[in-house]
Amino acid sequence: MSTVTTDICIIGAGPVGLFAVFEAGLLKMKCHVVDALPQVGGQLSEIYPKKPIYDIPGFPSILAGDLIKNQMEQIAPFHPTFTLGERVEDLEKLEDGSFRLVTSEGTEILCKVVVIAGGLGSFEPRKPAIDNLANFEGGKGVNYMILDPEFYRDKRVVLAGGGDSALDWAIFLADVAKELTLVHRGTTFRGAPESAERVASLAEEGHMRLLLKSNVTEVHGNGKLDAVTLVPDGAEPYQIETDYFIPLFGLVPKLGPLENWGLELEKSAIVVNTVDYSTNIPGIYAIGDINTYPGKLKLILCGYHEAALMAQSAYSFIYPDKKFVLKYTTVNGVPTM
Amino acid sequence: MSTVTTDICIIGAGPVGLFAVFEAGLLKMKCHVVDALPQVGGQLSEIYPKKPIYDIPGFPSILAGDLIKNQMEQIAPFHPTFTLGERVEDLEKLEDGSFRLVTSEGTEILCKVVVIAGGLGSFEPRKPAIDNLANFEGGKGVNYMILDPEFYRDKRVVLAGGGDSALDWAIFLADVAKELTLVHRGTTFRGAPESAERVASLAEEGHMRLLLKSNVTEVHGNGKLDAVTLVPDGAEPYQIETDYFIPLFGLVPKLGPLENWGLELEKSAIVVNTVDYSTNIPGIYAIGDINTYPGKLKLILCGYHEAALMAQSAYSFIYPDKKFVLKYTTVNGVPTM
Repeated sequence: MSTVTTDICIIGAGPVGLFAVFEAGLLKMKCHVVDALPQVGGQLSEIYPKKPIYDIPGFPSILAGDLIKNQMEQIAPFHPTFTLGERVEDLEKLEDGSFRLVTSEGTEILCKVVVIAGGLGSFEPRKPAIDNLANFEGGKGVNYMILDPEFYRDKRVVLAGGGDSALDWAIFLADVAKELTLVHRGTTFRGAPESAERVASLAEEGHMRLLLKSNVTEVHGNGKLDAVTLVPDGAEPYQIETDYFIPLFGLVPKLGPLENWGLELEKSAIVVNTVDYSTNIPGIYAIGDINTYPGKLKLILCGYHEAALMAQSAYSFIYPDKKFVLKYTTVNGVPTM
Repeated sequence: MSTVTTDICIIGAGPVGLFAVFEAGLLKMKCHVVDALPQVGGQLSEIYPKKPIYDIPGFPSILAGDLIKNQMEQIAPFHPTFTLGERVEDLEKLEDGSFRLVTSEGTEILCKVVVIAGGLGSFEPRKPAIDNLANFEGGKGVNYMILDPEFYRDKRVVLAGGGDSALDWAIFLADVAKELTLVHRGTTFRGAPESAERVASLAEEGHMRLLLKSNVTEVHGNGKLDAVTLVPDGAEPYQIETDYFIPLFGLVPKLGPLENWGLELEKSAIVVNTVDYSTNIPGIYAIGDINTYPGKLKLILCGYHEAALMAQSAYSFIYPDKKFVLKYTTVNGVPTM
């Protein structure tokens, strides 16, 4: 188990977390950045590195991956340190007002200020409201994502959902599964029209079963799933036998462990004030998509502003006796650390 | 006299005013930009186009002039229009809630929303507190800046000040004026040490008079300046004859005509709220260095954020019945207008 001691621990290595390193660096505060993903950049690196962004001021267009590359170069003079691929699990305020954080891998971070720049949090599958669903999670017949479709070869599978994910996997598994059923509560699909047409054809041709205006309401089995109960709109419930039930209802962002740190939350976001983007816990700030305040827009450029105001406040928090004077980089350049 | 009709009139073509065009353009609102300077870019073009800026997110370093060039390219898809080299003098709220602005050259702008992005305002000379000083302004002996030093050839000149401007002009005019006096209330100069030494030498050699620990307290003359009263620290006042008195006390930013538009002001800045950066007058917003709110930092990147929130609010103001949905440029690109 390693221990890192720093001025500011930044949770989240997305564009806003990285810019917080810059603003803190201008004030000569040292930063350590932690992210659950194995690389810096957050969603920009993980989800859309090759997509152009058009609303970063001064860039008519920039690839998400290039923005992160530029920001890493911008903060290089301040020599930030990183713990990547580990999630911060615990946060503890010590007696002297400083903080102790511990990651999923047991890395300990001691710091004076915590800045949460966690974006939308981690993404978790949206689950249907079925009482004993959890009993069949973890390899017992209920899955929320399809990692390897071959796993379902010659098995009986019930998919549920009305989006692209449900349609695409239905098309793919129609040839793989022994028996495939797609259950959708509506009559039209949110996914691509061509995919919806293809699914309708596959059902007509007998390659799969398509049950519209229907819901899966119960799961059954003794230690291992063997059937689900289906309720068609305005008709009697009935059971069908199946080896797997896979609800594909999309992903929802979850805050994760920080939900238990005593922070004031509102609709899965951390409540901050707009003077300095501090939370209800002195010494903890939240910037970027993870915070909320009146007028909040989830834009990267807003997170940059929040990082600047946070840094001023963090400086006063760490050095209550020093008087801060704003210096422009055009006049002084960037100090080295 | 020409008339321009637009959705949003932006006063100030600096980086923040230009970015407001972009954010408004994403919401398909048309912008007209007015600036008293003859070119876009505000201070970045006028004062430091060749200086690098280090704190624009995503740019490890960018010349001020290049940032403006990039921003002009970024807003090109929205075809903003410009009135440059004219200052907005009058603002009037019409009966239907829209606005009518008139510039110094008589250009009329009709718009639904006004966005003031005026930076620090216009720079005006700081004047000493002498009662009848204004009587000698406008060619009667009191000037606040030296446009053409030859104008003072063989004239008697009293300069006042302790900065670089006073020192540099004293060195220059020592050879030009018939009689040159530099008055400074202190004993040390704020300007470059070499300049201060040079002035001391010129005074010792009899090329000029250097009066330290002294203040000019009165100006005299009948329609035209002919003498000033000097008060040395702890000594009796005395008069010296002069043709010109030129206080060089630096420039102070002034809001200018907008001081009279009924906006709530605080220390030469426009008071806004942080929900949408609106002022006390519905339909008028203030963004960038010209506004103030708790936590305000006069940084370009903060103005960018303010522009984004302003645009959302301006959209609701102009279209109270339309429901706004935030769209990300990574998903939709930039619409054309």
